[in-house]
Amino acid sequence: MSIISAPDLHLKTSAPGTGSYRGIIPPLVTPLNSEGALDRSGLEKLIEHVLNGGVHGLFILGTTGEGPSLGYDLRREMIARTCGIVGGRVPVLVGITDTAESESLRLAEHAAESGVDAVVIAPPYYFAPAQTELIGYFEHLAEALPLPFFLYNMPALTKVVIGEEAIRRSLSMERCLGLKDSSGDLVYYKKALRIASEKPGYRILIGPEELLAESLLAGGDGGVSGGANVFPSLYVGVFEAMECGDFTEAVRLQKLILEVSCRLYGVGQYGSAIIRGIKCALHCQGICEDFMAPPYRERFRTAERKRIEEELRTLISMLPQAAAVAA
Amino acid sequence: MSIISAPDLHLKTSAPGTGSYRGIIPPLVTPLNSEGALDRSGLEKLIEHVLNGGVHGLFILGTTGEGPSLGYDLRREMIARTCGIVGGRVPVLVGITDTAESESLRLAEHAAESGVDAVVIAPPYYFAPAQTELIGYFEHLAEALPLPFFLYNMPALTKVVIGEEAIRRSLSMERCLGLKDSSGDLVYYKKALRIASEKPGYRILIGPEELLAESLLAGGDGGVSGGANVFPSLYVGVFEAMECGDFTEAVRLQKLILEVSCRLYGVGQYGSAIIRGIKCALHCQGICEDFMAPPYRERFRTAERKRIEEELRTLISMLPQAAAVAA
Amino acid sequence: MSIISAPDLHLKTSAPGTGSYRGIIPPLVTPLNSEGALDRSGLEKLIEHVLNGGVHGLFILGTTGEGPSLGYDLRREMIARTCGIVGGRVPVLVGITDTAESESLRLAEHAAESGVDAVVIAPPYYFAPAQTELIGYFEHLAEALPLPFFLYNMPALTKVVIGEEAIRRSLSMERCLGLKDSSGDLVYYKKALRIASEKPGYRILIGPEELLAESLLAGGDGGVSGGANVFPSLYVGVFEAMECGDFTEAVRLQKLILEVSCRLYGVGQYGSAIIRGIKCALHCQGICEDFMAPPYRERFRTAERKRIEEELRTLISMLPQAAAVAA
Amino acid sequence: MSIISAPDLHLKTSAPGTGSYRGIIPPLVTPLNSEGALDRSGLEKLIEHVLNGGVHGLFILGTTGEGPSLGYDLRREMIARTCGIVGGRVPVLVGITDTAESESLRLAEHAAESGVDAVVIAPPYYFAPAQTELIGYFEHLAEALPLPFFLYNMPALTKVVIGEEAIRRSLSMERCLGLKDSSGDLVYYKKALRIASEKPGYRILIGPEELLAESLLAGGDGGVSGGANVFPSLYVGVFEAMECGDFTEAVRLQKLILEVSCRLYGVGQYGSAIIRGIKCALHCQGICEDFMAPPYRERFRTAERKRIEEELRTLISMLPQAAAVAA
Repeated sequence: MSIISAPDLHLKTSAPGTGSYRGIIPPLVTPLNSEGALDRSGLEKLIEHVLNGGVHGLFILGTTGEGPSLGYDLRREMIARTCGIVGGRVPVLVGITDTAESESLRLAEHAAESGVDAVVIAPPYYFAPAQTELIGYFEHLAEALPLPFFLYNMPALTKVVIGEEAIRRSLSMERCLGLKDSSGDLVYYKKALRIASEKPGYRILIGPEELLAESLLAGGDGGVSGGANVFPSLYVGVFEAMECGDFTEAVRLQKLILEVSCRLYGVGQYGSAIIRGIKCALHCQGICEDFMAPPYRERFRTAERKRIEEELRTLISMLPQAAAVAA
Repeated sequence: MSIISAPDLHLKTSAPGTGSYRGIIPPLVTPLNSEGALDRSGLEKLIEHVLNGGVHGLFILGTTGEGPSLGYDLRREMIARTCGIVGGRVPVLVGITDTAESESLRLAEHAAESGVDAVVIAPPYYFAPAQTELIGYFEHLAEALPLPFFLYNMPALTKVVIGEEAIRRSLSMERCLGLKDSSGDLVYYKKALRIASEKPGYRILIGPEELLAESLLAGGDGGVSGGANVFPSLYVGVFEAMECGDFTEAVRLQKLILEVSCRLYGVGQYGSAIIRGIKCALHCQGICEDFMAPPYRERFRTAERKRIEEELRTLISMLPQAAAVAA
Repeated sequence: MSIISAPDLHLKTSAPGTGSYRGIIPPLVTPLNSEGALDRSGLEKLIEHVLNGGVHGLFILGTTGEGPSLGYDLRREMIARTCGIVGGRVPVLVGITDTAESESLRLAEHAAESGVDAVVIAPPYYFAPAQTELIGYFEHLAEALPLPFFLYNMPALTKVVIGEEAIRRSLSMERCLGLKDSSGDLVYYKKALRIASEKPGYRILIGPEELLAESLLAGGDGGVSGGANVFPSLYVGVFEAMECGDFTEAVRLQKLILEVSCRLYGVGQYGSAIIRGIKCALHCQGICEDFMAPPYRERFRTAERKRIEEELRTLISMLPQAAAVAA
Repeated sequence: MSIISAPDLHLKTSAPGTGSYRGIIPPLVTPLNSEGALDRSGLEKLIEHVLNGGVHGLFILGTTGEGPSLGYDLRREMIARTCGIVGGRVPVLVGITDTAESESLRLAEHAAESGVDAVVIAPPYYFAPAQTELIGYFEHLAEALPLPFFLYNMPALTKVVIGEEAIRRSLSMERCLGLKDSSGDLVYYKKALRIASEKPGYRILIGPEELLAESLLAGGDGGVSGGANVFPSLYVGVFEAMECGDFTEAVRLQKLILEVSCRLYGVGQYGSAIIRGIKCALHCQGICEDFMAPPYRERFRTAERKRIEEELRTLISMLPQAAAVAA
């Protein structure tokens, strides 16, 4: 298979990581080889790829990063190597969600020692806490964590929504930087923005990339967009267009993001299709290995790989128009 | 608070652990003190309490045992101490469910070294695998695990049902002992029994104690009954009555189990009420500490404790009739 | 296609309808021809078929009867003809569930004029009322209905559980005869029995036939069993065995009911498979037409019909043993 | 209680109903008096109120209109009177969703005779059809309906999503005007837009008003906004601002819509709170009666009414800024 190269849409150089936690912060996939070990050179290429695309931060060990599926040794290795490669060019965020609070805290300690900027924590996802229990859980963590943190709303996987009262309480937690919302429920997102308007600087990032421009229109702060692993400058382009008030351009680029979603994430029939699609597309571009952690384990087989390759070519043929404008 | 003592309903001594995995196998709570550490003497008392009640095995680090909420050091301590206290009198089963397969395997290794008889594994509970992915996951585990194992169906918490095909496949996994079903869906349970009828010795245990007698009537092998932490001989009584074909007695005792459920598990308003209720009742009986692991953390406060105390007295006043017969 | 005849397992003649609302009360399918009109002669044959099988009542226009899918003229025709054919031999119950209360009441009036014995009502199923709203709704109906009534718990289709407080309130509604529970949640069912134990004569019937014997063991009053359209005497056999305390026989027959469920309801891949399977089996037996009301409309096609025919033959070959005992 | 008057934000007169089905098409509430009968003068005032606000059409007997809860006589009266009052000034759309197809068709006939412009139909909501069954259902309706129609996606109440294939098929149904999406899932909405881009003129309207501006940014055609019963010109203002490319103004007005949602729809604790809130606010403005159809029946009691009154005053105090700009 020949490697497919995408044009770089993004010619303006972003300022080095300011720690503002605004903009595009890709949820980095964890490149794994067939043994389930970290593909180290792949990780390096991937990080350079997205930094070249102008992203404003990196989020590792989140859902797209298959964090909860990785053994703790692997998670620690991923943290240490990522910090080493990034070298402070942009902020690094690390997912520490676990069902055992003490394991979350232990990983946060390791992250702090490795030079991570902030951690990200979703509700524990085996037992479903009631809202008052969830608030107590976050309050305890807020005291115990060695780093600033984002809350992470991901009800499809954790079974629990971070409710309005929990968001309100998080405003008075000094180290709470904001909320990452992956619910796909933009009404929830907008109500969160309304609540957080009381605390300037509290960031609300959107998960589903299909809603990036809309979330920004509503006043959001940026996107943790899975597709930015593959086409970082496209997502950065939407963010920058909205920052400049160029809504027309933002809408045009956002339509390309929908194409990415429809073409790369709908191959295969399971929930794992999104992460598999992203990893496979990165592999097609010669960036990294694309094996999955258990329980998914297998990467796409030949038929699906072929389909991803084709869709990738189609997507790249749609991008130059965008690139032309960006240039 | 004075200690409330329950009469021992069970006068016949059970045979020592035969490893048959039939009968009442309580999902042991994990006694925790206010620091979140293991209440070691409480654990000892608890184990003696349930063994005195005639139970046929112990299941630790399951849902009732708050397994996924405990740090790995604590889980390892719980395994080692339980094995030490039990000393081979009954089989010990250990929950090793985790979202990271490698952590499940590592814990299973520790369990094997500690003398555990079997492990119990539910689907990984962050990502929801499709059925074919789930089957692949179990097949990989079946090769890698150092101990025989039960599958554990718990869709309310794992989001995934272990489907009929997965059960069918497990019949040909040599080390698979059977299925523990906590779905509360007795139609599913009976269909599982029908599938497993092809493999004599494959055990199907029921989680919800409210269905113990009915599951046995349908041909089931026993119960992993939370309430057997508190009143072990009551649950053993149902099992033995059904074994003897004394359906009338089984129904009579099963009605008392429904009383336990309605009276002890409905105090407080959250999903955590069941485990909190069991732990609080054990504390009222002077058996062990009753703090919860995060995210629940808090034990019942005064009002709820008082209510549990009253319900416990009521329950105990209902038991002598049963005891009389058992004697 | 030649007609497949099943042996009649039931030789004892049941007493004529006593209005006791205990026993097997089949949820009659509504025989429809290819035009969507009532298959009148099929309805007659079907009713004689199930009455010959010894059933203790008939429930028309329920879920299995596709009640909510039928136009009101058709529902009225079904009521009038059924009452005419039954002629008081057993009680007739009619489903009047609707999203518009006034249409439920209008149908109940028609039912009362037609000689129906009781109506059956589930929560309105478009808007999901909160429990207090649901209780208010039932209280209003209890005043307005011209006939005694059963509540009908069917949360998979109505989105709302009839909660414990609503059951408790129904005990003091003079015309409320009891509860039909199709939740499949036997813990709920048993808690309902516990609540209703305060009111002797309050009946609790089980929907899912796979749980018939277990529900009776727990103290239930009978089953609204879809498969009793096809093999009425099998279901009556379970009921009578439990009435006589012959648990072994009940379990043996109940296993055959599970066979009916696994063999006839799992053909085809959709939720409509159960009703389609029952109707197709009746057609194979030469009893009635088997078209479906919209939105399902289509009956099984050739491949599925063939499969049903085969399964039906297998089932009938399993029945004689049962018949032998019954004789 | 004195009547609260809202300023009219909308000074530009909209063109008379062009049948384009773009813009703001309020889902009209059904004004009911304490007997459950139509408040006829209230209906007249309500229609004049929203037409004065510049709305582009009316949708009656939808979810907000409590259509499925109303008896058929009342639904027919509502259709006839609405058409009479509107007199062709804007298009009138009528919800005909029912679980019985024949009743939907009968109501559609009545609608056609009354001069209605189009009907709106959601999946039947008792049985949940599979996608192929749903497509068959829509195809049959498309042949049989006497009027052009919109599909209506409302999975929270119908339990079924109108899937991508069903949307695709609807493009080739000549009389299908488009899709009304009330899922609240903007990713779905955008994918629907992408599919429908093949058929110019196919309209996609959004239900949840909190997403109105965002849906328009994505290329949507308008909103079926419940709050437009109360403040029609606010919603028309968002639509017109987006039409002119004045994104800043659209965002500003959209923020006020979020205020309407947070302040009027969150009073009371049940799902019925939205419709109750809208009706109560209309009553506070002296427009119409605010009783609810069963199962909700009750309107807000004193405490909630007071709260709505206060919130209404607050909202009106926020509007003049908007009005100033509009003027």
